[in-house]
Amino acid sequence: MTARFVALYETPADSAAFDRRYHDVHLPLARRLPGLRRYTISRDPIAVRGGAPYYLVAELEWDTMDELHAAFASPEGHAAAADAAHLQELAPVRSMILTVGESVL
Amino acid sequence: MTARFVALYETPADSAAFDRRYHDVHLPLARRLPGLRRYTISRDPIAVRGGAPYYLVAELEWDTMDELHAAFASPEGHAAAADAAHLQELAPVRSMILTVGESVL
Repeated sequence: MTARFVALYETPADSAAFDRRYHDVHLPLARRLPGLRRYTISRDPIAVRGGAPYYLVAELEWDTMDELHAAFASPEGHAAAADAAHLQELAPVRSMILTVGESVL
Repeated sequence: MTARFVALYETPADSAAFDRRYHDVHLPLARRLPGLRRYTISRDPIAVRGGAPYYLVAELEWDTMDELHAAFASPEGHAAAADAAHLQELAPVRSMILTVGESVL
């Protein structure tokens, strides 16, 4: 079981401005979140169903949900959240927290 | 680098009917996809930004994008895709294929 924060960004009107803000400001802030174990960024997903694909998918993982909540409540978490509000002006986002279970295979 | 298919389901009008179809029909079909390495199902994510959370997030992973494409092109892939069309009648879905990169930490 892994605790994961996922942010799904729609295609920005100005993708260069979004990319710049994400890499130069948001990424360095998010990297500092306490207890963060893994942070992956997937670009240009290919849509299968449901219309246009998202532009960028960011996934941040912690070992437990308690650690994720502690990270969000920390000063680093507040700084990253404040910047997320700026990013959202550049690209609509849908973000969520979820528990990734064991593989069902 | 991992090749991943992600299906994001909105809350179904009839969640019992959706759950039944997903577990009794779709899951057994999807499990048979050739080369599938990992298949996780996350329920009831908590929304952070962007409105209502998705209802269910399914992730299916292959070692390479070539293997993912081979699985989709197989008879098992066609059977799972045909059933996905039925599932979509029970809950709107947004699905995509993406490459999950190395952690940026």
